Amino acid sequence: MKREIDLDLKQRAQKVLPNGMYGHESTLLLPQSYPQFFSKAEGAYLWDADGNKYLDFMCAYGPNVLGYADARINEVAVAQLEKGDAMTGPSPAMVELAEVMTDMVSHADWAMFCKNGTDATTMAKTIARAQTSKRIILVAAGAYHGAAPWCTPMPSGVIDEDRAHIQMYDYNSVKSLEAAVAEAGDDLAGVFATPFKHDAFTDQALPDPAYAKRARELCDQTGALLIVDDIRAGFRLTRDCSWELIGVRPDLSTWGKSFANGLPISALLGSNSTREGAGSIYATGSFWFSAVPMVAALKTLQILRESDYLEHMIALGEQLRAGLQSAADEAGMGFRQTGPVQMPLFLFDDDPDFRTGFAWSEAMLRRGIYVHPWHNMFLCQAMTEADIDLTIAAAREAFAEVKQARTSLEPHPVVAAMFASMAAE
Amino acid sequence: MKREIDLDLKQRAQKVLPNGMYGHESTLLLPQSYPQFFSKAEGAYLWDADGNKYLDFMCAYGPNVLGYADARINEVAVAQLEKGDAMTGPSPAMVELAEVMTDMVSHADWAMFCKNGTDATTMAKTIARAQTSKRIILVAAGAYHGAAPWCTPMPSGVIDEDRAHIQMYDYNSVKSLEAAVAEAGDDLAGVFATPFKHDAFTDQALPDPAYAKRARELCDQTGALLIVDDIRAGFRLTRDCSWELIGVRPDLSTWGKSFANGLPISALLGSNSTREGAGSIYATGSFWFSAVPMVAALKTLQILRESDYLEHMIALGEQLRAGLQSAADEAGMGFRQTGPVQMPLFLFDDDPDFRTGFAWSEAMLRRGIYVHPWHNMFLCQAMTEADIDLTIAAAREAFAEVKQARTSLEPHPVVAAMFASMAAE
Repeated sequence: MKREIDLDLKQRAQKVLPNGMYGHESTLLLPQSYPQFFSKAEGAYLWDADGNKYLDFMCAYGPNVLGYADARINEVAVAQLEKGDAMTGPSPAMVELAEVMTDMVSHADWAMFCKNGTDATTMAKTIARAQTSKRIILVAAGAYHGAAPWCTPMPSGVIDEDRAHIQMYDYNSVKSLEAAVAEAGDDLAGVFATPFKHDAFTDQALPDPAYAKRARELCDQTGALLIVDDIRAGFRLTRDCSWELIGVRPDLSTWGKSFANGLPISALLGSNSTREGAGSIYATGSFWFSAVPMVAALKTLQILRESDYLEHMIALGEQLRAGLQSAADEAGMGFRQTGPVQMPLFLFDDDPDFRTGFAWSEAMLRRGIYVHPWHNMFLCQAMTEADIDLTIAAAREAFAEVKQARTSLEPHPVVAAMFASMAAE
Repeated sequence: MKREIDLDLKQRAQKVLPNGMYGHESTLLLPQSYPQFFSKAEGAYLWDADGNKYLDFMCAYGPNVLGYADARINEVAVAQLEKGDAMTGPSPAMVELAEVMTDMVSHADWAMFCKNGTDATTMAKTIARAQTSKRIILVAAGAYHGAAPWCTPMPSGVIDEDRAHIQMYDYNSVKSLEAAVAEAGDDLAGVFATPFKHDAFTDQALPDPAYAKRARELCDQTGALLIVDDIRAGFRLTRDCSWELIGVRPDLSTWGKSFANGLPISALLGSNSTREGAGSIYATGSFWFSAVPMVAALKTLQILRESDYLEHMIALGEQLRAGLQSAADEAGMGFRQTGPVQMPLFLFDDDPDFRTGFAWSEAMLRRGIYVHPWHNMFLCQAMTEADIDLTIAAAREAFAEVKQARTSLEPHPVVAAMFASMAAE
């Protein structure tokens, strides 16, 4: 595979971007042959700066739910761009979007729109404190709720006070949650939960309904707000808040990746019982009221309501899971697929430093399939059965290749250093 | 003026948005006839949802620097939207944009791009602490640096710890700054400064060079980072960091309103001495690496470099300031115009509750001129001498009208309640 342009861009980036890149799309913690820069994206496919083409199971880490550069979305976005985007006030589309989202999401009576997922989770935390006049926020250990100082997973530059009154519990553990709530006493403002456990570097886990229901009960008993962080999973599990699937309704829910098919917008939705707190806080951003992402969201949500995108993604996800399991079994590789089929994570048995997963991912990449070795992936509406067949065929070759090379694989230097530094702490 | 559609939208919004709107574009603290929703924006003009047309001196609170829906920007934005926007990695435009911005901004050696101004200021704070291993951050009392818990001007839901080690000094006061630095002792991480004083509800003030130079010296002596928050003023004072005009070079600068002409992107720029701290923090967002705002920024910056947009805005600003002063003098109204002419603020003498300013702004609005009674305004390249002539003519009528009505003006109920609540604290 050609890598000249990407390597040249990486060298130039070393000069003008910290570490050459930052944030979740940095390839620093990916196999070394992974391209950093992309020139084109269409449907389920990506082209890197050198023109290599990949079937993309990351979907921009979530935003791509229908397909990249979807003509239905781009048409309304371009029309609105010509009428007005960032203006001195919002367009009427903002009201319509709030009406549509509060209509689709059962618990929601009001909406606030913002840009980052972190904006939505930070507002949720602040509203929980404003609404309850209490301080303690419970989050599940290892869960990702954004990258502000109160929640970023790599706390350089973060001071102790940034995380004051943020307490941990273990996801899916009723006992741990009950203990954390008891510990919080009469100072509990809110409880965060992702709709399922989708922490990086570890097997995913579906929510235990007993845990989710207990979270609701404990919030009802204490007056704390239950916050479902649906930023990553929202509208990929159901056409409502994800915990509706297990009959648990939060007070606040946060949204962000998928609902405008890649146009920049996130949201916080709340029930009437939180309206006063929501109305009391001041949070804003230069581009929060821009019209283009709102009309893109309206069109995306219409398609989500009217199409079988979800059933299609689940069917493809089941095809993929079964096919990969057969291929792994044939190769005699211990291969774990966890989480909902439409948001899979692939990990290898006996692979503590991820060298097998990295080698397998790299072998998939060489075959034109972009998979991630430690972060959950995403399916999208634009994928087809033929794409999944291609993926399974590539996986069969990749399993064989990695099995043969397994004894000579080296650990990834940056990942190894990261684990060493975590172990030393 | 027709207001039916806007009033209907406001009623619908009351149900689905907290308080009917939130954030800096809410009209809650504006004269009651101000429209909340806009359907179209082109050049220097805005159309509200009812089709009323205004010459817009807010420029979307800054982002509109060339003119709304500028065809030069929209052309590159649409072309990129069809190629790819949010992808699984950035496009090559990210490297080019970092190269261009570090080239234009003298102090800058590296760039990080984000979405909100608050993202950039929060990263600056975090990097200052990471780079120095110290905690205290100085900010000027009353200055706006964003709406996260550590800096939001309306701290509902904010706990004491959110602002731990954030200390205040008085803008433009060498003595106050020296005292705050002395108080911080050996725990000073960074000093924030806006390029000029542009606090809401109060006269603007240009920076005293003695203050700016002393801030640089004190940072050099203590190892703290000097952070110029150029989000609001960036590229409206000069084609470089704003404090280059007075010969003071910061370590970090934050950008956000204008550099992509309204497409959603903000930035943090830093000098080499801060590269390690910048490389150590983890901050990211779902849409931070999207390609469309980056190509829009590249095109906007090219136009800023190659056109006389700045000299044009300054010339119009001088025409406006002189014309308004004459009109106010003729009416015998005490009218203060402060700040750079291209970012003016208008306040009235003997107007402690702003009722005169509100009435005058409302009288301007009725004449098709959108001005703000307590927030600085913005000129843009699309404005013309004829637009300024129109504004001055409208102002002459508005001064006369307000002078006649002055004794019967009522205070704005929400503003009055806000001041009463502040006085009670």
